[in-house]
Amino acid sequence: MSIRVRRLEAKDKPAWLPLFKGYIEFYKATIPEEVIETTWERLLSGKEGFHIGLVAVGDDDVPVGIAHVLFHRSTWSPTWYCYLEDLFVDPKVRGKDIGRALIEQVYAEADASGATRTYWATQEFNYRARGLYDKLATKSPFLQYRR
Amino acid sequence: MSIRVRRLEAKDKPAWLPLFKGYIEFYKATIPEEVIETTWERLLSGKEGFHIGLVAVGDDDVPVGIAHVLFHRSTWSPTWYCYLEDLFVDPKVRGKDIGRALIEQVYAEADASGATRTYWATQEFNYRARGLYDKLATKSPFLQYRR
Amino acid sequence: MSIRVRRLEAKDKPAWLPLFKGYIEFYKATIPEEVIETTWERLLSGKEGFHIGLVAVGDDDVPVGIAHVLFHRSTWSPTWYCYLEDLFVDPKVRGKDIGRALIEQVYAEADASGATRTYWATQEFNYRARGLYDKLATKSPFLQYRR
Amino acid sequence: MSIRVRRLEAKDKPAWLPLFKGYIEFYKATIPEEVIETTWERLLSGKEGFHIGLVAVGDDDVPVGIAHVLFHRSTWSPTWYCYLEDLFVDPKVRGKDIGRALIEQVYAEADASGATRTYWATQEFNYRARGLYDKLATKSPFLQYRR
Repeated sequence: MSIRVRRLEAKDKPAWLPLFKGYIEFYKATIPEEVIETTWERLLSGKEGFHIGLVAVGDDDVPVGIAHVLFHRSTWSPTWYCYLEDLFVDPKVRGKDIGRALIEQVYAEADASGATRTYWATQEFNYRARGLYDKLATKSPFLQYRR
Repeated sequence: MSIRVRRLEAKDKPAWLPLFKGYIEFYKATIPEEVIETTWERLLSGKEGFHIGLVAVGDDDVPVGIAHVLFHRSTWSPTWYCYLEDLFVDPKVRGKDIGRALIEQVYAEADASGATRTYWATQEFNYRARGLYDKLATKSPFLQYRR
Repeated sequence: MSIRVRRLEAKDKPAWLPLFKGYIEFYKATIPEEVIETTWERLLSGKEGFHIGLVAVGDDDVPVGIAHVLFHRSTWSPTWYCYLEDLFVDPKVRGKDIGRALIEQVYAEADASGATRTYWATQEFNYRARGLYDKLATKSPFLQYRR
Repeated sequence: MSIRVRRLEAKDKPAWLPLFKGYIEFYKATIPEEVIETTWERLLSGKEGFHIGLVAVGDDDVPVGIAHVLFHRSTWSPTWYCYLEDLFVDPKVRGKDIGRALIEQVYAEADASGATRTYWATQEFNYRARGLYDKLATKSPFLQYRR
């Protein structure tokens, strides 16, 4: 199976839905159905201020991995920061560098937009993901505080 | 001296500038003058997609502390996430709960906007700040990766 | 292959040596040959104050994994603390629960000695090991400082 | 007040006791009285395998700070490792570099014994102590796991 990463399209909804829900479950979280629907609509809207959706697809053009990316302003940048909020690969097709392909496309999008930083957050104990991230990015000394 | 937190105003530029520069220096970073100027203009613009500026002022209404806050979309929320990107208090007036007053006003802004999360990042070894943050927020298990 | 854990014996030297050296290499460290020889002699000596050696062996009784354990005094305990200083499994036989078998035998030794704590240190980014440790022990909030 | 660090002596018991108990309370822990008594006797015994006690004293020779140090074998060293298990300064006399004086004397003891490493563990969120440790030692990437 060769993997390609492209923008999310309307026809992807049946494949996108279980991937996004799998991602939410990974975090032992829940999101109401209507919020998931809103997120879907925003991803497709293409409007400034909303996330861009990327999907990794196999030969059949069906998504097996997703990435949701937000370009936002920073007080430290004249252009944009590129925030990778969500990244998920179907557990049934792990170990095929799909996560890497998605991140590399995020980098390409960031470069195309002139973003001066690309970043994401991951749980300290997400060892599998961190093994990949250590190869593609730098762990910063920044922790996240939340109300 | 009693401390009040209010929105940034055009007259605050002479006090805001050394505070933002002091903050940048704290991170041993540099930002070109024209980017600082752009950031100033964006903070004052009041346009969606740009940061809100908050300042802590004393009895003379002159800023001694700053907070820059970005409301942005999240795929997990129908409303907003509230991201506190910058927080700085003049080192000469430390120990007067000015940082706390600024964060509490950030929370008030977040509540007024219906934001479903308020968060910020801090360096693991920023002990002074973390002593305050531990009282006002929860340290998440999230680390930040960067390209 | 069934795995058994037993005390280190004199006949194990040819198998122990590459395992201990593999462990040292894992940490990108070097230890002079004469120190390795001293460590070997101390492990076999059985004297108080020196480490106990444990080995995981297959059906042929040849070590494929090692654990070096020190019982030492603590100001917090009337008995002993059990410190697992070294743990290593031959990379060629990973994924067979050999690390787990070694740690479980360390626990058995600790219990037999009435030790009131068993502990070890691991590098934050040793994801593979931490995946196992998270199942068998608790990550404490303690960091290690060194001169 | 000038501070001097010396070995613990029998006459120090009335001052040592509240310091060790203050240290235990700092960790929200409890140790039975008889274990504290055993620890006291071991500290004074001077026997190999038990901790050395150091005290920081003012002009009146009364302890205001304590350090308990264990020299133990390591499989990585032909000599000793020096483990600083306990360090505590009377909260009423903080900010006088007493912790630093104690650690420096630990280093002197380690050097006198030819120890090839001196180390200790501290809680990630012990910001006050870490501010000092960052000046005197190196934070390793090692975390502590415990049964």
